Amino acid sequence: MSAAQLLLERRAEYSVIGKPVPKVDGDLKVTGAARYVDDVKLPNMLYAKVLRSPYPHARIKRIDVSGALRVPGVVAVVTAHDFKLGRLGILQDHPPLKGDKVRSVRDEVAAVAAVDEETAERALEEITVEYEELPAVFDPIEAMKDGAPLIHEELGTNVAPVNFTFHSHPPEEIERVFERARAVVEGEFRTQYMNASPLGTMGVVAHYDSAGYLTVYTNTQAPFLYRRDLARVLGMDPMRIRVVQTEIGGSFGRGMDLYPPDVIACLLSIKARAPVRLVYTRQEELMYAPPRQPVIVRMRTAADRDGRLLAREARVFLDAGPYVSWGPYDGRVMMVTTTSMYNVPYVSYDAKVIYTNNPYTGTQRGAGNPQITFAIEQQMDELAEELGMDPVEFRLLNANRPNTVTPQGIRITSCAMAEAIRRAAELIGWRGRGSLGPNRGIGFACYFHVGGGARIYRSDGCGAVIVADDFGQIALITGSTDIGTGSDTALAQIVAEVLGVPVSWVRVVNDVDVSLRPWDVGTHASRATFVAGNAALMAAREARRVLVKGAAEVLGVSEDDVELRDGYAFSRSDPSRRIEIPKLIRRIHFRERGNVVLATAFYDPPNEMQDERWYGNISATYTFGCQAVQVRVDPETMQVFVERVVSVHDIGRVLNPLTAEGQVHGGVAMGLGLSLYEELVLERGAVVNSTLMDYLLPTALEVPPDVQAVFVGEDDPEGPFGAKGLGETGTVPTAAAVANAIYDAIGVRPRRTPITPEYLWRLKREKGK
Amino acid sequence: MSAAQLLLERRAEYSVIGKPVPKVDGDLKVTGAARYVDDVKLPNMLYAKVLRSPYPHARIKRIDVSGALRVPGVVAVVTAHDFKLGRLGILQDHPPLKGDKVRSVRDEVAAVAAVDEETAERALEEITVEYEELPAVFDPIEAMKDGAPLIHEELGTNVAPVNFTFHSHPPEEIERVFERARAVVEGEFRTQYMNASPLGTMGVVAHYDSAGYLTVYTNTQAPFLYRRDLARVLGMDPMRIRVVQTEIGGSFGRGMDLYPPDVIACLLSIKARAPVRLVYTRQEELMYAPPRQPVIVRMRTAADRDGRLLAREARVFLDAGPYVSWGPYDGRVMMVTTTSMYNVPYVSYDAKVIYTNNPYTGTQRGAGNPQITFAIEQQMDELAEELGMDPVEFRLLNANRPNTVTPQGIRITSCAMAEAIRRAAELIGWRGRGSLGPNRGIGFACYFHVGGGARIYRSDGCGAVIVADDFGQIALITGSTDIGTGSDTALAQIVAEVLGVPVSWVRVVNDVDVSLRPWDVGTHASRATFVAGNAALMAAREARRVLVKGAAEVLGVSEDDVELRDGYAFSRSDPSRRIEIPKLIRRIHFRERGNVVLATAFYDPPNEMQDERWYGNISATYTFGCQAVQVRVDPETMQVFVERVVSVHDIGRVLNPLTAEGQVHGGVAMGLGLSLYEELVLERGAVVNSTLMDYLLPTALEVPPDVQAVFVGEDDPEGPFGAKGLGETGTVPTAAAVANAIYDAIGVRPRRTPITPEYLWRLKREKGK
Repeated sequence: MSAAQLLLERRAEYSVIGKPVPKVDGDLKVTGAARYVDDVKLPNMLYAKVLRSPYPHARIKRIDVSGALRVPGVVAVVTAHDFKLGRLGILQDHPPLKGDKVRSVRDEVAAVAAVDEETAERALEEITVEYEELPAVFDPIEAMKDGAPLIHEELGTNVAPVNFTFHSHPPEEIERVFERARAVVEGEFRTQYMNASPLGTMGVVAHYDSAGYLTVYTNTQAPFLYRRDLARVLGMDPMRIRVVQTEIGGSFGRGMDLYPPDVIACLLSIKARAPVRLVYTRQEELMYAPPRQPVIVRMRTAADRDGRLLAREARVFLDAGPYVSWGPYDGRVMMVTTTSMYNVPYVSYDAKVIYTNNPYTGTQRGAGNPQITFAIEQQMDELAEELGMDPVEFRLLNANRPNTVTPQGIRITSCAMAEAIRRAAELIGWRGRGSLGPNRGIGFACYFHVGGGARIYRSDGCGAVIVADDFGQIALITGSTDIGTGSDTALAQIVAEVLGVPVSWVRVVNDVDVSLRPWDVGTHASRATFVAGNAALMAAREARRVLVKGAAEVLGVSEDDVELRDGYAFSRSDPSRRIEIPKLIRRIHFRERGNVVLATAFYDPPNEMQDERWYGNISATYTFGCQAVQVRVDPETMQVFVERVVSVHDIGRVLNPLTAEGQVHGGVAMGLGLSLYEELVLERGAVVNSTLMDYLLPTALEVPPDVQAVFVGEDDPEGPFGAKGLGETGTVPTAAAVANAIYDAIGVRPRRTPITPEYLWRLKREKGK
Repeated sequence: MSAAQLLLERRAEYSVIGKPVPKVDGDLKVTGAARYVDDVKLPNMLYAKVLRSPYPHARIKRIDVSGALRVPGVVAVVTAHDFKLGRLGILQDHPPLKGDKVRSVRDEVAAVAAVDEETAERALEEITVEYEELPAVFDPIEAMKDGAPLIHEELGTNVAPVNFTFHSHPPEEIERVFERARAVVEGEFRTQYMNASPLGTMGVVAHYDSAGYLTVYTNTQAPFLYRRDLARVLGMDPMRIRVVQTEIGGSFGRGMDLYPPDVIACLLSIKARAPVRLVYTRQEELMYAPPRQPVIVRMRTAADRDGRLLAREARVFLDAGPYVSWGPYDGRVMMVTTTSMYNVPYVSYDAKVIYTNNPYTGTQRGAGNPQITFAIEQQMDELAEELGMDPVEFRLLNANRPNTVTPQGIRITSCAMAEAIRRAAELIGWRGRGSLGPNRGIGFACYFHVGGGARIYRSDGCGAVIVADDFGQIALITGSTDIGTGSDTALAQIVAEVLGVPVSWVRVVNDVDVSLRPWDVGTHASRATFVAGNAALMAAREARRVLVKGAAEVLGVSEDDVELRDGYAFSRSDPSRRIEIPKLIRRIHFRERGNVVLATAFYDPPNEMQDERWYGNISATYTFGCQAVQVRVDPETMQVFVERVVSVHDIGRVLNPLTAEGQVHGGVAMGLGLSLYEELVLERGAVVNSTLMDYLLPTALEVPPDVQAVFVGEDDPEGPFGAKGLGETGTVPTAAAVANAIYDAIGVRPRRTPITPEYLWRLKREKGK
């Protein structure tokens, strides 16, 4: 019996919630009817191409675009000198077009809009740029040293002005705990650059119309912030800017920020007075899309003789590239996991964000959590080994428990972490270290993640508007964005459950101009189903009141006696008295002094903005889980074969076992990519493996057929129908679990990703010495 | 001082209401940024052309489309035999494609979708249709006679099964009143076929996508009913149909129904699996768009010796053409004016709807009211003359008064009819009959029209949703449609006034899929500002509560003390305590447990569905007015020159004197077209003047510069800010006033429109005999 079936049996009280409902946008997607940004074709649309720096660091002496303007078919050319622009990024350190200096090989120097892509490409060759090359730095540790080339001279340092430091106690007190501990492990862990590799590449179609309205079709995952930032950078009245989110072919965090191509397409459209399309090719996506934040983590963890964690210290180095986008802010997520994943009383965390001439980074599924978990969960195994404890028992001993507060002020409410660990061990068939014999091993890793929003902005809320039509269609206009996770399906289920209608009657709307949608901060931190779901739930309950009142009148019963289910309103006491809901809607509407079903709601989760010490309960609830991975390592080639994955999750109530399983499967695949395969290889800051021939995305051959998604835990008190977030968590523990399994198999401990055969071979050789 | 200025002085208490605010969509329209149906360009869009019958009445023996299918570039061809379709129109007597029989020369027999219009045209020539011609009938009176060719054989008669009969008393009782009256006048009046001639011709782009969703871009003025009807006719689930209303380049009633081209474009798209465009050329518009309902009115009116109206009887004959669309339903409007325009105790009304082989008709601005007013208001002059009374005094004596109920159950609340008559007489400088000397004359005509909706459907309501963004933009998602009248501007003003923001911050949204908009029955009966305005008002008041509550907190004052005005929330008692509203919105939102400004409302006016006797108060309020026209008639050519028009209206509070004046000016121009110029000339049911060279639309040369729009009356108790409807009324009395002026000038009474020189010459010659 599958996990999905088990759930169904256990939770049969609902008609739609907990059922394996196929994705509501599935038909649109499989038939090709969904409109991705690539499908936006506007009359007279022009095509844009961008000229980038050939040097990782150089001063721009002169830009001459006159040659490009002479190319037949070219309509507009832009450089930094054409517009007075604001800067992009969290620290506003990123000019959308570079006029004085380039700081990486992908820096945008000029762009062309032409009648087709070929002409635009050709025109780029006619632009002359004179550079004065500058010394460059590509290693964040090097970049912190005195005398390193300065990326932003005016700062006088390459360390970005970002403070990611948290101490539970004064540093010397923590140090004393380490000194007196029974066991301390210490090590450095490194993770790589990864491309998010969604099917839909980054893209935008910008249309500045003759009335001065700028409409931008984009696959951003944070359209409200996108509009705000675009207005600021362009210096335009936000009321003149209309952002329409297209269908999103995956995003995985890539779409969190406003990037130079977004602005460039707008500038070209303003100049050309025509729609301008700028959509990345796959090669451009690999080279220029913001990759996952690579990290260097130096970590120490200490435990007492009984195996209780005493202290953990992490020193993290985050290579921002030349500009701070969302990648370095993974440092905040890593902080919370460091302080709060296990019950550890003394914690010290510091992350430095360092400018280099590498690519700037974005956030990606898990947002730093896979990276820090790679360190934490290996040290858990190391400590257990040092203490002579079973790694499962050691984790159980230190696992989070419900209704506790961690040193960083994280308030844990629902928590089935221990159950998740036990289930993972049971289902993978754990019989202790080395029990599978040589070259085969099992590794465990837990995860801890936000599951009830994440207040990284002053509002973590989401709005919902319900408009029912006379045919029974319930339109839910949501601020929320489905980036491919199935969150729209969850929202449809929530509304359908409350209103007692089939899911297919609910239409989730988020493809209209964002200023017609009620606010949402964007889809990140696994928050869509939790936050937007609660908003949808509240709005649906308001809509339900109209239906119940109307049904009571029509059926001649009291409102308390009315039930809505399966498309009918009926009397609980006499179910033969019933009316189809579409008919009920018409009965309520089509009479003198009638009414229609309209409702609104706004839900802002009860979480906290962290204070200047980074103390505070950032999420309304948290998710927990444990992944067990079984690997075989070929002793000749050192190739790692993942044979089984058991992925156990406490995400509260599972709204949809089908999409939940899908999320876990996808998350594990992505985690395996991080663990073993994917890496953007840089040479002097330039991506050299810019095709999917060279960039090793896991395929069906790399993902084992036996990935088991298991759900444990109880309803969360704050979640919609008890649900917590799930989007990212499948990815979080995988690399750590794979590394632990490799150690179990061959006795070497991989401390960097991807864990390539070559790397393992070197480790083994070093061990042999 | 203009009427607009006068109003401003009188009603200074509001910041936006009553101000001459330019149209909110003006910038979009004058810059060409507005997207009309003609601007909808979808990728791979095909172009459709329709094959129509060459015969007014014929049986179809055979249709062979194989030749068309062989034309390169043709993608799809449809005939009635390809789909099982429902029928169009109020009586569902109209097949979208004709398979067995054609009943007029515009009947659609087949249609082609091809890569361009030329190919589609060419392919039509390759379709072979074999007809068996049938005898035809083109005169409604002839069509009622025994032995006339039957348009719908199955009915056994050409009189459509529509009952438009109202008697205030038993017929014999009414007849006795006529017998005993001091004065009775009797006559027959006829009006012509008129084309609505909006700048935007009829059109649709239909897109049946690969997932089975049908999206229709249309310039309908009743998108909710359009979707319902389209689903019924196509036999499709309405949830699969998405109707998007484009910007509307005028409609004037033409867009009230679903027509064959709408369905045909959908069928072609379903067959071709590609978007299909079917937009009329100007010539097609003149030939095939539904014209204004022509009428034959036989009327008697009786008065007592004191000049009090005693009785009125109207016998109306409405030529429906072969199918009943909205045109014949003008019979209901004519009924209400007949019974309720003046205080006349005995009324009898009967309208027959008659099938012929002429074009089927639509409704048009005023919806029968100009036609019936042409009869009523001439008889008012005739009666006054017969009684030796001044026509102004006679009208004043019989004018409606506030708080009365007419024989048909029309409840008159606010009513400044008498004031309107007096002002018109005063402003035109009336000094009695014939006072302007030979060949120059003044004529008066009053009007009476619905001004508070018109319950012709079970719901006369409109919904509103307000979504405010963080920049202070207030999106009003309305069910209502601005067909060019400026109703969106009025809605924006209402919301702006309530929320204390500039009009430019309000964005009226009605260009999204209709199933995301809250219901509205459609823009007709001058109802948009009244009904949608009340809905907007209610929603704005709900939104205001959020702002006031937030402002009280932020400013530290009580809610009672908060005022919203000019973009600020401030303390009434200490206006220095204030905050900009966008900032206030952000303060309310960007905090823990924040809130956003969302609101909904639905307003269904307190009017009544008329009963089977046609008794009932169809509108929540009514408008009144009087138009005075001064003409000069050239005694040689009998050409009529309109020298001045004074158009006085009681429309309650004038929300926007600029757009109100514009509506009156446009209405008068259209009324002059009806009076003197426009006529679709038919030969055996075919329009023969199918260009604007032959069809005499009044130009700037025909409309006198001196058209004075004057507004009288008090706030209506039910209207938004006291407003009543205005859209149609400028047109209603013009023809009658022109006719009365001509009589005053040259002593002949025109009883048909258009009052051409030739017609006047004939009248004068007859009189001379």
